[in-house]
Amino acid sequence: MKEFFKVVDLDEVISKTEKFLHKDKENISIDDACDRILAENIKSDENLPGFTRSTMDGFAIKAKSSFGASSSNPALIEIIGNIKMGETPDFSIGSLEAAKISTGGMLPEGADAVAMVEDTDEVDDSTIEVFKSVAPFQNIVLFDDDFKKDEVILEKGTILRAQEIGLLAAFGYSVIPVYKKPVVGIISTGDEVVSIDEDVSPGKIRDINSYSIRSIVLKCGCIGINYGIVKDNYDDLKNICEKALKETDILLMSGGSSVGTRDFTIEVLSSMANSEILVHGISLSPGKPTILADIDGKPVFGLPGHVVSAMVVMKVVVEPFIDRLKGISERSVEKTSTAVLSRNVASVTGRTDFIRVKTNIEDCKFIATPVLGKSSLINTVIKADGLVKIDKNTEGLYKGAKVNVIPL
Amino acid sequence: MKEFFKVVDLDEVISKTEKFLHKDKENISIDDACDRILAENIKSDENLPGFTRSTMDGFAIKAKSSFGASSSNPALIEIIGNIKMGETPDFSIGSLEAAKISTGGMLPEGADAVAMVEDTDEVDDSTIEVFKSVAPFQNIVLFDDDFKKDEVILEKGTILRAQEIGLLAAFGYSVIPVYKKPVVGIISTGDEVVSIDEDVSPGKIRDINSYSIRSIVLKCGCIGINYGIVKDNYDDLKNICEKALKETDILLMSGGSSVGTRDFTIEVLSSMANSEILVHGISLSPGKPTILADIDGKPVFGLPGHVVSAMVVMKVVVEPFIDRLKGISERSVEKTSTAVLSRNVASVTGRTDFIRVKTNIEDCKFIATPVLGKSSLINTVIKADGLVKIDKNTEGLYKGAKVNVIPL
Repeated sequence: MKEFFKVVDLDEVISKTEKFLHKDKENISIDDACDRILAENIKSDENLPGFTRSTMDGFAIKAKSSFGASSSNPALIEIIGNIKMGETPDFSIGSLEAAKISTGGMLPEGADAVAMVEDTDEVDDSTIEVFKSVAPFQNIVLFDDDFKKDEVILEKGTILRAQEIGLLAAFGYSVIPVYKKPVVGIISTGDEVVSIDEDVSPGKIRDINSYSIRSIVLKCGCIGINYGIVKDNYDDLKNICEKALKETDILLMSGGSSVGTRDFTIEVLSSMANSEILVHGISLSPGKPTILADIDGKPVFGLPGHVVSAMVVMKVVVEPFIDRLKGISERSVEKTSTAVLSRNVASVTGRTDFIRVKTNIEDCKFIATPVLGKSSLINTVIKADGLVKIDKNTEGLYKGAKVNVIPL
Repeated sequence: MKEFFKVVDLDEVISKTEKFLHKDKENISIDDACDRILAENIKSDENLPGFTRSTMDGFAIKAKSSFGASSSNPALIEIIGNIKMGETPDFSIGSLEAAKISTGGMLPEGADAVAMVEDTDEVDDSTIEVFKSVAPFQNIVLFDDDFKKDEVILEKGTILRAQEIGLLAAFGYSVIPVYKKPVVGIISTGDEVVSIDEDVSPGKIRDINSYSIRSIVLKCGCIGINYGIVKDNYDDLKNICEKALKETDILLMSGGSSVGTRDFTIEVLSSMANSEILVHGISLSPGKPTILADIDGKPVFGLPGHVVSAMVVMKVVVEPFIDRLKGISERSVEKTSTAVLSRNVASVTGRTDFIRVKTNIEDCKFIATPVLGKSSLINTVIKADGLVKIDKNTEGLYKGAKVNVIPL
């Protein structure tokens, strides 16, 4: 029995995300908001910093009091006050007057600059010499320099990094509207698969995929639920799929997708209410026998059973798919690096290949070295720390080629 | 009052980690082990895969039965069995005999290769034609090809990614020995700092650092505990430091490190039992007024009070420091990318500068554009997604320079 896959391109698969965009919101504590995705535009309800403040330790003055000052001709200025941190000065600064101020202190009325402490000398308790002239607005931040009142400070869809969390704190947001984490169900299928707590007799293999796939799901910012191992039995698989789809937003099934059992998987998926098989094979290596179905509005992936193929499909298909589903359109700087390929790699035109590479820094260059060894061995992904894409229109890549590395 | 910092180099600060290496272990479930650090070498107690298996759907044969076969001269081979997934075949393969096998199926005695289903045709129920000769060991994986019994499969200090979690599952490890997560205490200091739930009157600023610093701490794989805001009061600061040091492994205090209040912080730290000030200023911009103390064997950092400086010090000093403390010696591929600088940047020799950049891909090039704006404004780190280091021995970087980008 000969059967060919009706394969589609990688980009086409990822574009199917649009069918599934329905993002639920929730309000969470700022303490839990790191790495979450903002579900609403956030506006400033006040100016930031809110008052004109010093960015240096020194003396608040009128800048013109220092004009022409130098070490040979210092300006003599009277200290008329000391500004305490967190307090509003109750005096104002006139010509040739100064007030001691710390970084972050509030500028008094009349002052428009700060002379750095390093450029001054205290002659006595009430007089300083300023050795260097300062320009108006030097060493200060104006009350609305950072953010102005009523502007959008963070847009819907923003990934909340440490700095966005800090900005939300600055504006007093202790509860943050974010998109809910997608709940992802994971099922391992196959008569040969046994639980990791069991001994393996010849012919059997422990359930690797439930654990490696769930790890990637967690790193994608989702909630991962394992539904265990299902033997190659139509009713069992159908029952567990139905249960999982009630409890999850996305379902990932590994195994059962190569010739022989894949028809059986397709049959189960097709039999479910409101189901449509969207993809049945991708022009991708490894990972060709990947299935994508729409079951009552939820995406269901059939992943290859082999751990290496399943991992590659997770990284290059499911992860970008989930990122888009979550509302992240741009891949962040963390996700690709440019490296130089250390040797020639041959490939086959007409399909997108992903090769495993190990990166290292040599002589200031970031080098990607293809990992050798049979592609079906787990040790190749243990040795590797990246994937390099070989486009479907090329026959390979030359040594010295600049390649993007997807961290593995 | 003029005072200079006695600054040390960045590398010298990070090398101080060695003083603090004392890593406690714990055993955790494999379900929680992703991104944790392995605390023991892990050995294989069996071969992987454990049996010789097919990597293709097809027919298990003796390779020599196919020698010389082509589409015009197919080899005629008798089907003597069907290998079920997960089962040990109870027959053996002789010359010109074949058994149907799926990907992952166990090879029967006598067979040494698999003819792919695409290269065969079933003439009738008991006979196939093979159109392409296969070499011995083709399309199979030997019983110990992936990992051999009694070898170290994962070394102490390994970060557990999805593939390592998968490998541990393959060998049946459901409980994993890992290093405990460092517990990091965070204190904000300063009379001007108010809680994020409070209104800010002029001169005051909300507590940004507790939230942005804790976010970075969490992303470093640590447990972050906020100890709230401490006013500039000797006894209060000393009490909260003593309490925090009892409950944490590392203590981070922001604020109180610039001239004026920093002497006061130093005084509190010095007054504690078994304390030593290791670093009092780093030749780094921003971030010069950073303090590192050893209090009874625990590292205590005094970070700049300003959110931008504090973030830079967290990323370039504290994060690599914690990574090394956790036993990670090598920065992973995720942590730096090489980019091309889009414009000249001037710098000052004698100190290491970190400039904020925004990266983007233009015409297949990964470009880093310096973010303009006063360095003390939060909006500069919101706009940025990376930091670029300017070495202390250079006066700046030219447009077109290749730079490493630390994701921000």
